[in-house]
Amino acid sequence: MSGEIKRRGLMLVLSSPSGAGKTTLSRKLLESDPGIVMSVSATTRARRPNEVDGKDYHFVTPAKFEEMVKADAFFEHATVFEHRYGTPKKPVTQTLAAGGDVLFDIDWQGTQQLGEKARDDVVSVFILPPSHDELERRLRTRAQDTDEIVAKRMAKAGSEISHWPEYDYVVVNRDVDRALAQIKSILDAERARRTRLIGVGDFVAGLTK
Amino acid sequence: MSGEIKRRGLMLVLSSPSGAGKTTLSRKLLESDPGIVMSVSATTRARRPNEVDGKDYHFVTPAKFEEMVKADAFFEHATVFEHRYGTPKKPVTQTLAAGGDVLFDIDWQGTQQLGEKARDDVVSVFILPPSHDELERRLRTRAQDTDEIVAKRMAKAGSEISHWPEYDYVVVNRDVDRALAQIKSILDAERARRTRLIGVGDFVAGLTK
Repeated sequence: MSGEIKRRGLMLVLSSPSGAGKTTLSRKLLESDPGIVMSVSATTRARRPNEVDGKDYHFVTPAKFEEMVKADAFFEHATVFEHRYGTPKKPVTQTLAAGGDVLFDIDWQGTQQLGEKARDDVVSVFILPPSHDELERRLRTRAQDTDEIVAKRMAKAGSEISHWPEYDYVVVNRDVDRALAQIKSILDAERARRTRLIGVGDFVAGLTK
Repeated sequence: MSGEIKRRGLMLVLSSPSGAGKTTLSRKLLESDPGIVMSVSATTRARRPNEVDGKDYHFVTPAKFEEMVKADAFFEHATVFEHRYGTPKKPVTQTLAAGGDVLFDIDWQGTQQLGEKARDDVVSVFILPPSHDELERRLRTRAQDTDEIVAKRMAKAGSEISHWPEYDYVVVNRDVDRALAQIKSILDAERARRTRLIGVGDFVAGLTK
């Protein structure tokens, strides 16, 4: 009898500048596909009242975080405004081994680190805003924002966007449903990638003997 | 103003042993997606009454075929039962340059030749039958087929199937609608692959300046 084809999970990375709609796309993807879960980061910053430990973040002490860094327990980590953030390896590798997929909402620096440690498992997607005007509109979040503040945000977005050539796929978010469909296609396709499949040899041997 | 993102077309190769349902999947894909066209092979064999020159095949003389081989005008070519078959380069490269995709129904040998000449444009999918019994059922096309004939067809299928590791994707055709959806996802995803996109740099430059 032929064996069953299984597969190793994949790490789907969505990156984009602020204002490209990534948070909405991540949420909708998670809602529509039970086979993929969000990666939960560890952080040293204090828990906010609306946050749940283990769901929004794993809240850890600076000492514990440093211990994990030394034990090479993170796929990637960074310091932002004196707080440390990192992606613990263990829950991700367990999910992948069980054939589940993990979603990452990280920037280009995190993506680079992830790629160094787990290139074969990473599928990276860069999401672009549809136009200059739309990006500016989304970055001008409050009516009283000065042109100077908006210009600063545009410059920051420009710096982030410059890393698009480091990604496997590029999706322009003109329409959220179309962009979501494209991300779902990428996930569906990458699940059928030969190098991720396990047991094809046995399955195939059983087909004709 | 930001430029427009265009893309280079891709060459989608579907291969499978007889009895895996490839012909049905190809037809349904072509019917459902106007952005992809079937590659039309050239052949030296005689036209059958129901065939249309330029649609089913380009019917050419042996001398013309040989001339095209010498001019390196084929992506791949082969001889089957003394007749020659080949994929002319020109219509394919024109379609790709215009952003259109081309579907190829070729075997592993053709796929290898295509890969040598146009690796970056090729996306290859190997379609597997769901089980030994189902494959045998499909290969036993007539009630009077002897077990010996069916065993011969199974052996031939086994030899073809052994080339699955040379493909980018593997799809098991358990259910034709699911297999079709998976092939459509592969096509949709590969259309968003960064390396196929043209003009992203200009588009991105226009986003933030």
